[in-house]
Amino acid sequence: MVKQEEKMRRRGGRTARRAAHINGPIIHKPALVSKVPLYDIVNEEGVEQINELAMRIVEEIGVEFRDQESLEIWQKTDAEINDTNVKIGRNTLLELIESVPTEYIHHARNPERTVVVGGRSMVISPSYGPPFIYDFKGVRRPAILNDLHNLQKLNHMAPSVHIAGGPIVEPLDVVVPHRHLHMTYSSLKYSDKPIIGNVTARERAQDTVDMCKIVFGKEFASNNCCTTSLINSNSPLVWDATMLDALKIYASNNHAVMCSPFSMAGASTPASNIGTMAVVTAEALMAIALGQLVRKGAPMLFGVPAMTVALNSGAPVHGSPDSAIVQFLSGQMARRYRIPHRAIANCATSKVPDMQAGFDSMWGLFPSFLAGAQWITMAGGIMEGTLGVSYAKTMIDLEQVDAFYHFCKGCNFEDIEEIFETVRDVGAGGHFLGSAHTRKANLFIFPSQNNTTYEQWELDGKKDSAQVGLEKAENWLSRYKMPAIEQDVDGALQDFISERESEISTKVE
Amino acid sequence: MVKQEEKMRRRGGRTARRAAHINGPIIHKPALVSKVPLYDIVNEEGVEQINELAMRIVEEIGVEFRDQESLEIWQKTDAEINDTNVKIGRNTLLELIESVPTEYIHHARNPERTVVVGGRSMVISPSYGPPFIYDFKGVRRPAILNDLHNLQKLNHMAPSVHIAGGPIVEPLDVVVPHRHLHMTYSSLKYSDKPIIGNVTARERAQDTVDMCKIVFGKEFASNNCCTTSLINSNSPLVWDATMLDALKIYASNNHAVMCSPFSMAGASTPASNIGTMAVVTAEALMAIALGQLVRKGAPMLFGVPAMTVALNSGAPVHGSPDSAIVQFLSGQMARRYRIPHRAIANCATSKVPDMQAGFDSMWGLFPSFLAGAQWITMAGGIMEGTLGVSYAKTMIDLEQVDAFYHFCKGCNFEDIEEIFETVRDVGAGGHFLGSAHTRKANLFIFPSQNNTTYEQWELDGKKDSAQVGLEKAENWLSRYKMPAIEQDVDGALQDFISERESEISTKVE
Repeated sequence: MVKQEEKMRRRGGRTARRAAHINGPIIHKPALVSKVPLYDIVNEEGVEQINELAMRIVEEIGVEFRDQESLEIWQKTDAEINDTNVKIGRNTLLELIESVPTEYIHHARNPERTVVVGGRSMVISPSYGPPFIYDFKGVRRPAILNDLHNLQKLNHMAPSVHIAGGPIVEPLDVVVPHRHLHMTYSSLKYSDKPIIGNVTARERAQDTVDMCKIVFGKEFASNNCCTTSLINSNSPLVWDATMLDALKIYASNNHAVMCSPFSMAGASTPASNIGTMAVVTAEALMAIALGQLVRKGAPMLFGVPAMTVALNSGAPVHGSPDSAIVQFLSGQMARRYRIPHRAIANCATSKVPDMQAGFDSMWGLFPSFLAGAQWITMAGGIMEGTLGVSYAKTMIDLEQVDAFYHFCKGCNFEDIEEIFETVRDVGAGGHFLGSAHTRKANLFIFPSQNNTTYEQWELDGKKDSAQVGLEKAENWLSRYKMPAIEQDVDGALQDFISERESEISTKVE
Repeated sequence: MVKQEEKMRRRGGRTARRAAHINGPIIHKPALVSKVPLYDIVNEEGVEQINELAMRIVEEIGVEFRDQESLEIWQKTDAEINDTNVKIGRNTLLELIESVPTEYIHHARNPERTVVVGGRSMVISPSYGPPFIYDFKGVRRPAILNDLHNLQKLNHMAPSVHIAGGPIVEPLDVVVPHRHLHMTYSSLKYSDKPIIGNVTARERAQDTVDMCKIVFGKEFASNNCCTTSLINSNSPLVWDATMLDALKIYASNNHAVMCSPFSMAGASTPASNIGTMAVVTAEALMAIALGQLVRKGAPMLFGVPAMTVALNSGAPVHGSPDSAIVQFLSGQMARRYRIPHRAIANCATSKVPDMQAGFDSMWGLFPSFLAGAQWITMAGGIMEGTLGVSYAKTMIDLEQVDAFYHFCKGCNFEDIEEIFETVRDVGAGGHFLGSAHTRKANLFIFPSQNNTTYEQWELDGKKDSAQVGLEKAENWLSRYKMPAIEQDVDGALQDFISERESEISTKVE
């Protein structure tokens, strides 16, 4: 492989350079520490107005916890509980969330991939939850376990993706009661980055923690964050037992939980950016507070997957200026409460990786990064309003994430004197292409962006970015190298899965 | 037409609502006054460092003016002139640019379309200069006059486009020496919005002004801004005679000129965002100062079409995080000098309106709007690094501009009490779809974004956004109504064109 590359490089020319670039070594970038300013879309008074509205909601309307155990936990506080409705005074609520760490360490099985989440440290994680795959022929079909493995591999190789993820895609060929075991194994086996846990049932969350115990040791995995998991409320103002069970399991082991209201402005939240923000704030803070009652100091995130409803079809829509506003607001509210913020990036509503899909995705990307979200999910591939994930779009999206990484480095003022001298040397009417300063430069160019002439592009087969993305995915998969895993750990994980499979009924629920 | 719409509306259903939406009345939005904060990517110290570097360039390196008349104008100042090189002290330069209006009125032949440019008022203008059209079959071919007319019509109908534009596309079927006459006529005839002037020769600029005299009156068009025109430097640090001639003609008539260095980081400007910004600042300010020497108080803009070079191919690249940074910097520098700022939006490097084209465009859109650029060119359709314009992309891009218009309205805090009551009425687990508050809502949904189910999308013909864009362009053209123009004015314009055509040799230059 190396020999072939060397040969092509010596042969020179554009094709060789391109091949060398495509086949370059795998780089794993550390968590992003952005050097550009955050963008506040409202002023401090605006933040306080949203806080006030959220506090009135928790005090006067309340949030439902449809879970007996959670209600019993709330009884330890001065909350006013009626049936499943929990109303709480703002002082109690704000005091409870004070113990949430502003940053936490999320451990990876490879210590080199362990990341800090929160504070100034931002991490990126893959797609989450789609049941459909847009495959290597661009055909949409139900996803299978091999698709999950493939996406684990691609995300493992993505320089700016820090998290292995969990349900990057739903493997529909594995029965639901056993699926979480294979998803967790996939993330632990095909990547060595930090993983996302399963939340679809109490015992599945427990199985995830138990698998972490095999990898990290029992004591360690019971007291240190080895997964970050995502729970969604049933907006408006409802947390159900399944999600709360997952919250309790993970928090009690000191693993992190993203408390993410399912905001869809106009349907599950008010048709107003301010109203949406207030409702999701109320929901998120209540779940976070419950998590702190389960285990004080357990890491939690303030999560907002901002969407809008299409009033004509009732469908959730990604790619909207209103959702972008909510994303910016979320960053401001999360900072107000000093809780790490989770946002979503590359989501499209399109049914094909088309121009609109690019636009849709950017309405999530720009706000996520400029809001300073410390956890950005959906790094790549999301189609069809989260119902599908595309191999092609995954690869193009991941380049965009790399570009934002570059953007967030901001401006370099250190070489000003050299710039001045270079401008003088190049002189009026000259060019900077060959100057020493340019040769050291680090300007970002998208690898899959076609910047040749139209004629060259025609000769190269008239490929659109969807085709280029597919080819890149295939190229990456052909070059994937599995990260090392101790054989006894791998064996123990496989034994655990076999054992649990024999215990868990596969009857359709 | 109205009857048909009414019939469909009564028939009800999604298709009818969609048709009503697509065939809705033409709306012309006023200039945008953004209510969201601007984004500063560097702090005040950073701005001053760029200013210092730019001032050292004008003082110690100088800018070339390859035009005898311009050099004679510079001789009125204490500039140090060596051959074509002009060096100037910062005090003189900054004093000269002080007379540039912070805002100006750009008159349209229909007074209702007259806009304020500068200050808090932002305007949007169409694509500029591409010789190729991606036509109604998606085929790329040399553009002809009818394409220009078509694009004039589409931009005239676009709610958030304020400017008729000039060379939205280059009509290659009209000989170069006569082309400017037909381009100017096209913008005056098929739109009633403010126009962009021709700059490709001194006499062509004069012809444009003379045509304005026919439309606005001789006295008026000699003293009021009836065109805003775009001149490009030959970066680095060169202004040529053609562009300077245009500058002199327009400025002397008090028409506006965008002084736009052709920045291509790594080629025509340093491979550094700071270095690029300093060089373009030096170039732009020198041209602006010259304009003020021609006519003190003539409106000018600080223009930066930020691009990057692809070092592998030498080609200009649109869609890059570095260019985005330069766009943000440009806004800050323009504000420092109190000169209206011109930015560029929807440019793609792609050769087909694909996913990458959407991403590329957004790297221009977000910075343009968040930098508060008071003039945003390239509102729609640009492909192939400005060599082509696509009907399909034009329509999809224009929706994005509408979305940024919506975004820039920011947050509404006025209905907070109603939101609270609506949340209480809907209650936990309810939905907001039918509430009175939602019915009044103004959430933005992209008209061409497919938000139906996958199955419905299949039944509807599996259209990607390029196809949807093409169909929308055809629909709009079928509904276009020419804005009224006085018959004598129209006749006088046509006579002027005939006369000038008989005077101007069509020999190839």
